[in-house]
Parts: sequence; structure tokens; C-alpha cells
Amino acid sequence: MGEDRWLWQTLGTVRLWESRWYNLRQDRVRIHTGDEITYTFQEHPGAVFIVPVTPAGEIVLMRQYRYPIRQWLWEVPAGAVDGDEGLEAAARRELAEEIGGAAEELRYVGHFFAASSISNLRIDVFLATGVRLGRGVPEATELIEIKIVPVAEALAMARRGEIKDGQSALALYLCEPLLLAREADALV
Amino acid sequence: MGEDRWLWQTLGTVRLWESRWYNLRQDRVRIHTGDEITYTFQEHPGAVFIVPVTPAGEIVLMRQYRYPIRQWLWEVPAGAVDGDEGLEAAARRELAEEIGGAAEELRYVGHFFAASSISNLRIDVFLATGVRLGRGVPEATELIEIKIVPVAEALAMARRGEIKDGQSALALYLCEPLLLAREADALV
Repeated sequence: MGEDRWLWQTLGTVRLWESRWYNLRQDRVRIHTGDEITYTFQEHPGAVFIVPVTPAGEIVLMRQYRYPIRQWLWEVPAGAVDGDEGLEAAARRELAEEIGGAAEELRYVGHFFAASSISNLRIDVFLATGVRLGRGVPEATELIEIKIVPVAEALAMARRGEIKDGQSALALYLCEPLLLAREADALV
Repeated sequence: MGEDRWLWQTLGTVRLWESRWYNLRQDRVRIHTGDEITYTFQEHPGAVFIVPVTPAGEIVLMRQYRYPIRQWLWEVPAGAVDGDEGLEAAARRELAEEIGGAAEELRYVGHFFAASSISNLRIDVFLATGVRLGRGVPEATELIEIKIVPVAEALAMARRGEIKDGQSALALYLCEPLLLAREADALV
């Protein structure tokens, strides 16, 4: 619906807070009723989520400590896009950084928005196949534990609600048709 | 993993920005290495997402304009939890406000975190059945268009990646086993 893209008119923009990870952006906006409002949202460069499949056909999950919720969550490798590196380069870099992984093939799956009323964070999802693991190089603040599980088990974990990181759970669901097609091929 | 809950120690908290919707919170934190870091995240009261099923067994979707991404997205009814109203009360209130809906039964499905590295936003998902629609009372800033589709079509839209609001797509996926069981029952 391209004609609606500028339905609300941006009158002004300030950044209330800026960092290398994201900004807090506040816009003055003329909305469809003609009224002027203030809209404040998280301005994010976007992130890639990668579902890694090993040559043996298993999925690599990571358990990571998330300070904002003070919990350990099951996730897939992911991270913010860095400047203008491009989505595929970001996906390969995060695979290497988080699990020391290198993929034979990277397939683009799709995108979604993480929390579209309060953030412009866009998530692009890749399926990585033929992933061989090396030694990950996590950032100092990252606590990561790795677990390799059969495809069916990873999908069952998502279905049982055990993957509480919503972005990782949805990335797995979006890859499900490809994963199941792959398993069916392998069985032939 | 309760023992890890306080793995990182909060040394101090300031709120860089506060609003009725969410805050930008900045903590001084001693991490597992002993180092002190600054961690800034969105502090949110939490939200409910409700998958509404009509007595005829169809799902009510909404198309909503999202300013941060300047796009119209397909979503299910949702909204922030208001003070201490409780999750179920929030779900019934949002159903009424967004689509003028009233549910015979509300079933708790599960929860996930929307973007756990930069926000503590927790999403609690409900399946609402026997939903009758009245006139919605959207807030002035909400632009909403409603569409009623068969269960199979709503799930297919998620699977085809047409529901770009990640939280709504995942809410639908989490309800899928219940929705399919319900359809199977109805066919008996």
C-alpha cells in the first residue's frame, strides 16, 4: 500500500539519546486527523537472525543471558547489521562471532518487525546450511552456551513455548517449511 | 535456572526518559567478569496479544498503520498492560477497544520476549473464542481496518510471511495447535 506510506507527515525529528546500538528518536508528526502529536520510538539499524543447520542436519541453538529480563534464553545466532555491510555479510559475521560457524550456503527466508509500535527494528531471517562450528568469539558481555539438536526437536521446542526469545522462535517457524522439505529430501 | 537470575549485579539505575508507554532505563552493572558496564534498555510494562476466533470459527485480523516503520501491518488485537489490571483483564479490554470484541472464553497460551537484548518487553498470548464483534473504540492515533478470515488462511498468511508484525505472527503460531485441534473437533 505504497500510497499510504506517508500518511502521517514528519514535521521534525530529535534524538533524545544516541548510542552505537540504537537511538531514542522523537518525532513531531501530523497524523491523518490533522492533529499534531509526538511519537517516540527506538531507532535501530536492523538485525539478522540465522538458523544454522549442520552437515548432519541438526540445528545449533545458543543459550544466552539477557540482562533486561535477567534470564537465560534459547536463541539462534543473531546480531545488528553493522553500517552498510549488507544483510548476508552481517549473517556470516554473526555466525562466525557467536558460534564460530561457517556456512556452505546462506538462504534468505524473509523479514518481520520485532515491535512495530515502539521500534523500527526489522529482523531479516536466513537459513544457513552446511554449518561447521569452530571456536566462537563472543563479545565480553555475551554469555553463551551451545546445544546441537535435531531439526524436529528444535521445532518442538518452539512449539512447546520453550524458545522464549520471540525473534528466534519466529525465525525457526519461518524456516520450518524449508527445514521439513530438506529432511524429506534427505530421507529419499 | 534460578541460580543465574542475579548473575549480573545491578549497581545503579537511572531513567533517561519516561513516558506512559515505556521508559529508557540505564543501569550500571557488574558483569560475570567483574567488569562494570553501562546497559541501556527499554523498560516496558508488558503487553498482551489476543488471537480472536468468532463463533463461526474464523480469525479476526487487523491492518494497522505503524508510524515507526511507515507501513500498514496485519496484526491481531494487542496492547500494553495497564498498571495492575492483570493479564486477562488487559486482554478483554484490548479486544473491546480495538475490535469492539467480547469473548466467551479466554485461554492463556504462553509468553515470549519481543527483543530481549534491548527491551524487557514481555508478550503474553491469549486465544479468545466465541468472539462477537461490536464497534471498536480505537484511540485517536490508531488507524485500523478489520478482516475476518478462516483459521487455515490466517495460518497460511503467517507461513507465507505476510504477517510482518512479528509478535502477531508468533502469537498465531503459538495458537496453531489449539486452533487445529478446535477445527478437528468441529469436523467430528
